[in-house]
Amino acid sequence: MLLRNCRFIVTQNEKREILENKDILIENGKILEIGNNLSKKDEVVDCSDKIIIPGLINSHTHAAMNLLRGVSDDKNLQEWLNEDIWPREAKINGELCYQGTLLATAEMLLTGTTCFNDMYFHTGDVARAAEKSGMKCFLGQVMHDFFDEDKTDDEVKNAEKEITKIVDLKNERIKPAITPHSVETCSDELLIKSKELANKYNLLLHMHLSETEKEVNDCLKNRGKRPLILLDNLGLIKNKFIGAHGIHFNEEEINLLNKNNSFIIYNPCSNAKLASGICPARELNYLCIGTDSVASNNNLNLFEEMKFGVLLQRVKYNDVGAMSTQRIFDSATIEGARALGIEKETGSIEIGKKADLVLIDKNNIFLNPNHNIISNLVYSFNGTVSDVMINGNFSVRNKEIVNFDLGELIEKVENFRELF
Amino acid sequence: MLLRNCRFIVTQNEKREILENKDILIENGKILEIGNNLSKKDEVVDCSDKIIIPGLINSHTHAAMNLLRGVSDDKNLQEWLNEDIWPREAKINGELCYQGTLLATAEMLLTGTTCFNDMYFHTGDVARAAEKSGMKCFLGQVMHDFFDEDKTDDEVKNAEKEITKIVDLKNERIKPAITPHSVETCSDELLIKSKELANKYNLLLHMHLSETEKEVNDCLKNRGKRPLILLDNLGLIKNKFIGAHGIHFNEEEINLLNKNNSFIIYNPCSNAKLASGICPARELNYLCIGTDSVASNNNLNLFEEMKFGVLLQRVKYNDVGAMSTQRIFDSATIEGARALGIEKETGSIEIGKKADLVLIDKNNIFLNPNHNIISNLVYSFNGTVSDVMINGNFSVRNKEIVNFDLGELIEKVENFRELF
Repeated sequence: MLLRNCRFIVTQNEKREILENKDILIENGKILEIGNNLSKKDEVVDCSDKIIIPGLINSHTHAAMNLLRGVSDDKNLQEWLNEDIWPREAKINGELCYQGTLLATAEMLLTGTTCFNDMYFHTGDVARAAEKSGMKCFLGQVMHDFFDEDKTDDEVKNAEKEITKIVDLKNERIKPAITPHSVETCSDELLIKSKELANKYNLLLHMHLSETEKEVNDCLKNRGKRPLILLDNLGLIKNKFIGAHGIHFNEEEINLLNKNNSFIIYNPCSNAKLASGICPARELNYLCIGTDSVASNNNLNLFEEMKFGVLLQRVKYNDVGAMSTQRIFDSATIEGARALGIEKETGSIEIGKKADLVLIDKNNIFLNPNHNIISNLVYSFNGTVSDVMINGNFSVRNKEIVNFDLGELIEKVENFRELF
Repeated sequence: MLLRNCRFIVTQNEKREILENKDILIENGKILEIGNNLSKKDEVVDCSDKIIIPGLINSHTHAAMNLLRGVSDDKNLQEWLNEDIWPREAKINGELCYQGTLLATAEMLLTGTTCFNDMYFHTGDVARAAEKSGMKCFLGQVMHDFFDEDKTDDEVKNAEKEITKIVDLKNERIKPAITPHSVETCSDELLIKSKELANKYNLLLHMHLSETEKEVNDCLKNRGKRPLILLDNLGLIKNKFIGAHGIHFNEEEINLLNKNNSFIIYNPCSNAKLASGICPARELNYLCIGTDSVASNNNLNLFEEMKFGVLLQRVKYNDVGAMSTQRIFDSATIEGARALGIEKETGSIEIGKKADLVLIDKNNIFLNPNHNIISNLVYSFNGTVSDVMINGNFSVRNKEIVNFDLGELIEKVENFRELF
């Protein structure tokens, strides 16, 4: 396929080049060439009125929770989980999980996201939805034993079973991850076994970390250590560890993260909405970004997340220099890819990488005048992209989902509403 | 005109009723009836898949600054104004002002705003753009003498001249307002004359107020009083006063505002982006909302503004109860109308009011499932509305601007870019 005469290409390559009026030649799902007057016999797409950006990466989701958008908006994390979310989640079976995740993929695709890092239940069903959507993802089966040692082994066995389901799919777009829930819900034993499982299969270890002051205080009181120090002592934060939220760190912990090259996933909207606090993103060397679920956000629109990500850093530090526009855009593209260990495959538009591309109308009302493309994308654009391609295949074409009937799905999901 | 079988009508009436499957009958620009099986011979619009909300009200704008989107993103208010904005604004003549404002009206209309409260220069040209767009507005010619007494009278005379231009338009949609810039740029003499001008014509008095700590400190140092106390002593905050930003107030000032029924315009995105602080909205009895200009936001999308408005209150007070979803939606509808003194005409969907209505696709990806309409509109929706009607006339139809060629305008404005 040839994307001809792309008006702007926001490459996110090492020099952060923005190319003008170039062609992108795609073969076997990869970017074969970027240049002028490239030729191709089969499909040619005129991109003379398009801005092309790398597919965005949402590094922390619970996709199936799209079923629960707007059920509870005014509680803090603990009350929200205990009173409103966990009782409803208990009703989500595999089929509901599939439908909810499929709805989430539609929302992500329609706002330019091509890859997500998910943590939920019924992971085999989540994988079915991801497969149908065309998206890339990392999927983990949540583990928590609530400090009941009778449950620990079952949690691990179940997670391993779900990993096997994903491996059996033999779909290179869909990768398993190991996802213990948090130090609030996992015993030391479970955390250690999570680490062993991650090592056994060489997988990403993704968990919630230091999201609330309560989590830190409980951990100090019950285990004598702050959450990150506990994880470090148990050997979890080496290698492929990635922590979601990461709000309440002291200086020692920030140094530890930076020294270990550990990524934190910044979730600005969810953290603000639940009044959990603001991630000290400015201090962190390794940062990616996520939306969390729509139950606490309440959408999966990374463009909005990027804007609010910068704004909250400025509020936290009372400093307009607290975070640059380029850095937040990096967190949703190349740094997101690096966090997930897929930076050789995606996260930027470069020869040899997979064609994970988002096309945006240059004449969009939010993108004019065009004094500064990155600024317009981060602070102004509302996420309504025109086309999305993953591994060279369109998953969104002319603002419509390609791989399933979205209208039918919305109707189906609306009918589930009374269950909750 | 008949809007037939509206799936949901978010009335914003006193009981905040949400009606289902009702017709809205419109005659002579007004809502004549709301009910079932209403009949009408002429135009009928099927609304069985639409959510109808009142037209949104943006209570603080500098519309023409749409020309300057993204020119400066990383400075605080004073540096941003002195170094990047004022030098560029000096180049904006009447014609540029007209084109920039027209672009702003397109952005506002396409995101469901029907009325804006503007403060700028070349007000006669701003009025021409507003007239063309079909929008309602309050327009003020900015006055500032920078404490140079030779300039004071000229500023007042010029503002009065611009008021006359607007009155001469004889367009009931377009109303003049009196807009001294701020205590940072206006002498006592100019503030007093502003008040007299507002009284003479019985107009809204709209100005920036307590936006930065510097403003408060300078006022204390140079005039021995905090900004709001100064304005009160000079007699400005009686009657039709409305203050934009309103971030740095002490308890005495908050009490004074509440006692006087004075509205503050909350501008969450702009204030966060410029690191000016967060308005103590929770403490204020009278609150409306604005975007400020795209040069500091960087868009005019009130849906995004409402979401960040709630989130920032939760951050400021570290409390999920700091602001309710309903209150922020009120600030952009009926409370916005009240702030501008037009609550008998607009701000809610009620019999006898003007038909200022926004139609939104019920099947929009951000609005499903529909557990809670107001929550979905405030926290999830990205602002892509389908139709906008002002005084019963469509200004947006099927996501397209009705009254001018937007593509042509975008091209024209892009060509102006090199001027700045």
